[in-house]
Amino acid sequence: MGKEVINIGILGLGTVGQGVVKILQENRELIEQKIYPRKIVLRKIADKDLDKIKLLPYPELYPVFTTSAQEVLADPEIDIVVEVIGGFEPARGFIKQALESGKHVVTANKEVIARAGYEIFDLAQKSKVYFLFEASVASAIPIIGALSHSLTSYKIKEVIGILNGTTNYILTRMSEEGRDYQAALEEAKEKGYAEADPTKDVNGFDSFNKIFILSAIAFRAKINPEKIYYEGIENISQIDIKYARELGYTVKLLALAQNNGEYLEVRVHPALIPRRHTMANINDAYNGILIRGEEGFGNLTFSGLGAGALPAGSMIVSDIIKIINHFDYYRNDYNCFEEKEIRDFQQTYSPFYLRIKVKDRPGVLAEIAGSFARNQVSFASVIQKGEAGEIVDIVFLTHRAKEGNVQAALKEVAQLGCVEKIGNAIRVVEI
Amino acid sequence: MGKEVINIGILGLGTVGQGVVKILQENRELIEQKIYPRKIVLRKIADKDLDKIKLLPYPELYPVFTTSAQEVLADPEIDIVVEVIGGFEPARGFIKQALESGKHVVTANKEVIARAGYEIFDLAQKSKVYFLFEASVASAIPIIGALSHSLTSYKIKEVIGILNGTTNYILTRMSEEGRDYQAALEEAKEKGYAEADPTKDVNGFDSFNKIFILSAIAFRAKINPEKIYYEGIENISQIDIKYARELGYTVKLLALAQNNGEYLEVRVHPALIPRRHTMANINDAYNGILIRGEEGFGNLTFSGLGAGALPAGSMIVSDIIKIINHFDYYRNDYNCFEEKEIRDFQQTYSPFYLRIKVKDRPGVLAEIAGSFARNQVSFASVIQKGEAGEIVDIVFLTHRAKEGNVQAALKEVAQLGCVEKIGNAIRVVEI
Repeated sequence: MGKEVINIGILGLGTVGQGVVKILQENRELIEQKIYPRKIVLRKIADKDLDKIKLLPYPELYPVFTTSAQEVLADPEIDIVVEVIGGFEPARGFIKQALESGKHVVTANKEVIARAGYEIFDLAQKSKVYFLFEASVASAIPIIGALSHSLTSYKIKEVIGILNGTTNYILTRMSEEGRDYQAALEEAKEKGYAEADPTKDVNGFDSFNKIFILSAIAFRAKINPEKIYYEGIENISQIDIKYARELGYTVKLLALAQNNGEYLEVRVHPALIPRRHTMANINDAYNGILIRGEEGFGNLTFSGLGAGALPAGSMIVSDIIKIINHFDYYRNDYNCFEEKEIRDFQQTYSPFYLRIKVKDRPGVLAEIAGSFARNQVSFASVIQKGEAGEIVDIVFLTHRAKEGNVQAALKEVAQLGCVEKIGNAIRVVEI
Repeated sequence: MGKEVINIGILGLGTVGQGVVKILQENRELIEQKIYPRKIVLRKIADKDLDKIKLLPYPELYPVFTTSAQEVLADPEIDIVVEVIGGFEPARGFIKQALESGKHVVTANKEVIARAGYEIFDLAQKSKVYFLFEASVASAIPIIGALSHSLTSYKIKEVIGILNGTTNYILTRMSEEGRDYQAALEEAKEKGYAEADPTKDVNGFDSFNKIFILSAIAFRAKINPEKIYYEGIENISQIDIKYARELGYTVKLLALAQNNGEYLEVRVHPALIPRRHTMANINDAYNGILIRGEEGFGNLTFSGLGAGALPAGSMIVSDIIKIINHFDYYRNDYNCFEEKEIRDFQQTYSPFYLRIKVKDRPGVLAEIAGSFARNQVSFASVIQKGEAGEIVDIVFLTHRAKEGNVQAALKEVAQLGCVEKIGNAIRVVEI
């Protein structure tokens, strides 16, 4: 049986760290059934803020609290380090130090994996310790486990995710209550769904980190994250959501990864998706992931809470349980990644929703259509929106067109005398 | 490393068996990456029908085909037996024989698990071999893996499933195309979504087997399957689906399992669920499963194909991969079930949709309402449906009421002079 008591050290006592402690304290009996006959001891908890521990209603843990991460990392008795500091450094350094000293590591840190994942996977392999990260993508959804241990017998062709709870909350409020972006963002902050500085969420960076991880795991791919295009929701306006709905679509921030054999397509951007699709009905702070396998295997869809102390904490603790149950027999699933190119975003294809503000006079449509035609972009439908007046919105749905061509056409169109401005250009995903 | 070559024997070459063979043959390279450095050899395939092997485009496998299950079971070289015969006997006997002789077993057989699961789990434990069954519930959805290895750190309170593809296909056709039950069933047969004899699907028996398995695994419960109430969709008529839709609901065949601490509630029946809910939008041959954890962990929803050669085959093969990767280190997750009572169905509570055909004359409503009131059933809403005439439908939505009371009230109401007949009584699940 080897070790009977497994010692845990936690780095970081923010939201997720507090969730981990809460679950370990309050669900101890349930957890010990799962790791029987072993026991877990919470041996050290580190946070540079001395007051953090007092937020927790567990005075019995005060003696194990420290403000020094090194006290955790240098403790030879600690078997598993939980890194829930977040951000790139010092988290990356701490993770490496832990792995190098033979400790297993569990983390929720998507940024570290996106920027230094392969190096860390290698290090874990070399040290023969586990590096698990279920909580790093779509908190409560056990997608890493599903990809690693259950969806193993067929090729995964595509992964489509709604991977950021903050933006999904904002878009849901805009869609359901007709709020504009700023008001919905404020509401998200008030309700705790957006941080004081929500930049990394609303600009797509958070989703970018997560789709990198899903691509790497689903396709066993070694890819360069810098090649992944990402775009956020800051330019989505109430009017676009309204027009999209009239056309039968919902606007979601999607993260997409396709395996086309030779190369991958991986990107993050807002998208119009059909309103009746399961993914269109994943709302508020929920995340959703669609997995498309080879022909005949059908689609799999997962949804669950995308953030929060308990959803993320639950997956951290389930990773701890996995490590404990594989303590005497090491088998790492995260090696042997195959190098894959990511196709240049300008070379990818999508249908587009385009909203263009024009001066309402004869010949406008012909001029605009001409510009698009010269750039090999053709229209599936054109609808004039709003009341007649000096300036009106025209909404176009294009056929599948090359990204670079659409961008070139939009530049050209923006210069036309009859065009007031390009209102928005949003890709359509016929999921 | 131990054994380098893992020998597989397959019992049964029906739909699922053929899927398993196809995946093992065509995805060999992908699978061998997952079990590196081991290899899989398909050593024997048995089916009592000599012609079955000829359905497969793999002449290289003809020599390993046999009509004798015993040839597979008695082969000392076979490490893993895949039982995909289906039905209770001889499948149960074969599984036991395999486990007793030290072979691991992978199965899709829900009926054997529902009727003899605990005995088989014990036997596997005693023989220190694996008994895995991911494909037995909601084919393509890796729900057993998720419950066993990922949703391990908090208590699961409730599992709600759409677990039968045949009935979901029928209900979807009835709902979307206005077909009646019989026409939708015929279409399901034509398209291969229903068997020639669809009894076990449409009467709820198949869902009953599956919710038994999910209850046992999610709650680690030892329960008596005979206490599980199940009811099928044979009495759902087009008019009920239409009225339900007008009231904001969709009709689905639900399998429900709740853990109330002292006892479980487990049952299968058609239900009205809110139309906008994710589960209401799981259509056609897809299955869906909703997992509700303790407060704060949110809901998890999974959807995927519920049947078919490749969806079921993929989970059988992923179980084979799991066994191979745990070959040298045995840890069985399916033991230590705690005895739990299932609450008597008559003692459970639901709101109801009731459709009652009445003679359209003054005082009818008062008479019916009186009967319900005497049985402690109160109404949330009452709507007269259809055109005025001699006989009209009245549709009632009740508040939560005790099953036994509703049944007693319906018996009483059926005797009233003003009542032509009870059209239908369907439980409402405010999911």
